[in-house]
Amino acid sequence: MSELAFQRARSPEAKQVREQAILAAARTLADRHGVRDVTLTDIAAAVGMHKSALLRYFETREQIFLALTAEGWRQWSADLCGDLAGRPHATPAEVARVIAGTLAARPLFCDLLAQAPLNLERNVSIESVRSFKLMTLGEVERIGGELHRLLGLTEAQAVDTVATATGMAGALWQMASPGPRLRELYASDPRLSHAVVEVEPRLTRVLTAYLTGLGVESAAAG
Amino acid sequence: MSELAFQRARSPEAKQVREQAILAAARTLADRHGVRDVTLTDIAAAVGMHKSALLRYFETREQIFLALTAEGWRQWSADLCGDLAGRPHATPAEVARVIAGTLAARPLFCDLLAQAPLNLERNVSIESVRSFKLMTLGEVERIGGELHRLLGLTEAQAVDTVATATGMAGALWQMASPGPRLRELYASDPRLSHAVVEVEPRLTRVLTAYLTGLGVESAAAG
Repeated sequence: MSELAFQRARSPEAKQVREQAILAAARTLADRHGVRDVTLTDIAAAVGMHKSALLRYFETREQIFLALTAEGWRQWSADLCGDLAGRPHATPAEVARVIAGTLAARPLFCDLLAQAPLNLERNVSIESVRSFKLMTLGEVERIGGELHRLLGLTEAQAVDTVATATGMAGALWQMASPGPRLRELYASDPRLSHAVVEVEPRLTRVLTAYLTGLGVESAAAG
Repeated sequence: MSELAFQRARSPEAKQVREQAILAAARTLADRHGVRDVTLTDIAAAVGMHKSALLRYFETREQIFLALTAEGWRQWSADLCGDLAGRPHATPAEVARVIAGTLAARPLFCDLLAQAPLNLERNVSIESVRSFKLMTLGEVERIGGELHRLLGLTEAQAVDTVATATGMAGALWQMASPGPRLRELYASDPRLSHAVVEVEPRLTRVLTAYLTGLGVESAAAG
């Protein structure tokens, strides 16, 4: 990198441009190869920086992916709440379909949802985790507002629902995306047909039964 | 290691003894530190072998932990089916409590359930994955038999149920076990109280609602 480029990046705008370029490179690589296989060196190479220069903008590889996870939460929540807000009424099955559909449409976010507690949150500063958690809890509250309006869920039920939706989206995505070598194995051995997982239909079924059951419990309690 | 020890390990019995010692060391280390932080070097040191000698018994670090995951599946399934088999009848809430209780009683298994698709299955031979998958599908079928008898679940519903129970157990365990640094953060910042996760009560609530909802759907279809 030239001396001039370094100087430019000292202004707040230039710093932001550089950060966005790093995030875009990480996003593209992770979309193509899966989060697991993307290293800091790969990201630096894709964005045309030295690894040491890249570490002026982000603490660690994990902080880059935690920033993409935060972006995923905001975009998913906006989409989901936008859809739900347009419905005067909805059944548990309809809400389940919207939640599952908006998650399954974001494979990188599903991948990141499983990676975040396992890897990403453990290799960044405490302050990065704090602001990440506060952001997600804010989105959970926003989604909870719609779930309360449409299905009468309590705050605790809404927190459980978002944890179930995001936890299962992450787990199912990992099961559904075992890499080409294992996908070929599952397809070639008929005894392993149950090992083939499709995220959206299974997540829809699980959330439909779950939200239906919550409704039954609320009716019994009410 | 002495020449004599090497020779002993050539008999099938001695080989098995050595394998069991390696698994026991990995189990103890992972119980204490979490699967994520245990390296092949740690395991070799704990069992008193050179890393290169250890690789005569297992392909990779991941194969060791996949063997512990397989052991966890067999033990969990035996416990769960043993409990369910003793019940002539059970409500969805009772079945949910047994599933959640037997999973939450196995923290290492919960940790491994999240690690398996993300990391373990991706760094072992195809044949290791095939036999691991066939074993888990056999246990799923066995659990499914009890779920069919007690709650009338279909085979597909039973597969979904076990995927939900194990997927959520893995995801919730990871959220509940963020390491001492983050646990301290969540406890110290009242805005983060919802980030504190307790595996067993949440898993019980989620599975109760889910199994209740499945029952409602079956009744409506039947």
